[in-house]
Amino acid sequence: MGAAMAGHLLSKGYALTIFSRTRSKAEGLLQRGARWADSPAQVADASDVVFTMVGFPRDVSDVYLGEAGLIQQVRPGMVFVDMTTAPPSLAVTIAEALKARDAHFLDAPVSGGDVGARNASLSIMVGGEARIVEAVRPLFDAVGRTIVHQGGTGAGQHAKLCNQITIAGTMIGVCESLLYGYRAGLDLETMLQSIKGGAAACWTLDNLVPRILDRDFAPGFFVEHFMKDMGLALEESRRMGLVLPGLALVHQLYLAVQAHGHGRSGTHALMVALEELSNVRVNATPAKP
Amino acid sequence: MGAAMAGHLLSKGYALTIFSRTRSKAEGLLQRGARWADSPAQVADASDVVFTMVGFPRDVSDVYLGEAGLIQQVRPGMVFVDMTTAPPSLAVTIAEALKARDAHFLDAPVSGGDVGARNASLSIMVGGEARIVEAVRPLFDAVGRTIVHQGGTGAGQHAKLCNQITIAGTMIGVCESLLYGYRAGLDLETMLQSIKGGAAACWTLDNLVPRILDRDFAPGFFVEHFMKDMGLALEESRRMGLVLPGLALVHQLYLAVQAHGHGRSGTHALMVALEELSNVRVNATPAKP
Repeated sequence: MGAAMAGHLLSKGYALTIFSRTRSKAEGLLQRGARWADSPAQVADASDVVFTMVGFPRDVSDVYLGEAGLIQQVRPGMVFVDMTTAPPSLAVTIAEALKARDAHFLDAPVSGGDVGARNASLSIMVGGEARIVEAVRPLFDAVGRTIVHQGGTGAGQHAKLCNQITIAGTMIGVCESLLYGYRAGLDLETMLQSIKGGAAACWTLDNLVPRILDRDFAPGFFVEHFMKDMGLALEESRRMGLVLPGLALVHQLYLAVQAHGHGRSGTHALMVALEELSNVRVNATPAKP
Repeated sequence: MGAAMAGHLLSKGYALTIFSRTRSKAEGLLQRGARWADSPAQVADASDVVFTMVGFPRDVSDVYLGEAGLIQQVRPGMVFVDMTTAPPSLAVTIAEALKARDAHFLDAPVSGGDVGARNASLSIMVGGEARIVEAVRPLFDAVGRTIVHQGGTGAGQHAKLCNQITIAGTMIGVCESLLYGYRAGLDLETMLQSIKGGAAACWTLDNLVPRILDRDFAPGFFVEHFMKDMGLALEESRRMGLVLPGLALVHQLYLAVQAHGHGRSGTHALMVALEELSNVRVNATPAKP
């Protein structure tokens, strides 16, 4: 996703310096005029605004606060924007470290996946100071379509977690519905015709069910990243004394998805865990009950 | 819903004979020219095609097979259509009893609620013989918009249960997301702006969340009817050896919704059970964590 987003910034004429742990991912951008940096610190040294988008919370921590991290080359007035989905509390830690050096931080996780990154149609949920959000809004506009300031530091992360909690529910509803319809002997395409225009309508039904029926579990959005996000939401919920039984159940079932080797599959591989539970496999041809 | 649907048939010029346990519900139709019957059997006696729409499976059984039931006045070639959401196995029982008298049965539960009934925009999921479905299609067209033949007897019921299973998932995802966002101190309207256009998008988010935020738990669709439908789906699943942990959890939580006096509230009152679990109440003003 990072490469596609950086590409949009290049297209808008911004001078870009980039670092990636996997240099091959940067080649296309370097050919288009981006400059290579050997470390996050070198990116900071060459830039006024720095965007980060990595995998897991520890990666975010390393990129900002590690030995060759961004924090080593902070100049007053710089703006740092983390677009990774990461703990709200980590956003606060980084924002404070940067503030001590008179620099600014925004947490700005995104929704919309690979396709959204390529089409610059991402939803960007931003936490931090309003005037800083406004200052970098032209850059957000280059990579996303729905840019919403959610509140102070960490609020972007919280909004993203709301997004993921909703998806956990729609995903289990849709997968269980397919499993039921299949075992009941329905033709699933015909069943979907009846339900997808009404109160059961959801993005998952329209966008992921065709892949499930084709047994195409390529990501989309990685199971292991969704696991991370659900884990963050459960951890924050525990801290806030909040009981989320639906999310907790779906999180457990995704452990089963991983146990069956689907950590790098798309999130719709939840189907696999449900099939294993019932020892049933949903095929294109309906089963008679 | 039955009154609105019968009204559309009258508008299309069909002669209508009606029975309801609550005669007051029929008054409007009687004034518009419908004829009153004192029992289901009298309706059958006066009609070629009979529609039924009642509350619970026992009501369906009584209306068809009871002492003054439809079965008492069956003539060969008649068509009976049950639009109640009821057990697929009951559909089979009734279809067989009617077949023994050379009459036909369709199970044809609907989705779309009060509004769909008023606007004739219902989704009608039909089980039974294809030629019988075609024979009564003009009548379905008068009351619904999406009329899909799902397969043999009971297939309409199975498709409707797929619909309800999906809704169980979207409902818990949406309610938990609101609860999380509220406790995290987000402005919920602002949060919704970020998530409702993307992968979390669903009918529940668009149509029921505004009511939840207004704490307006008027139905829509009754909790006790949704409980019945989820119960049917779980019973069928058990029979088919199917594990649906998401549906089972949501069904349990709706028991809590009923325990808190919300059996005759709308399904979005699931929020109440989740609030009770965490001893939190979602108000319009955000809580700071």
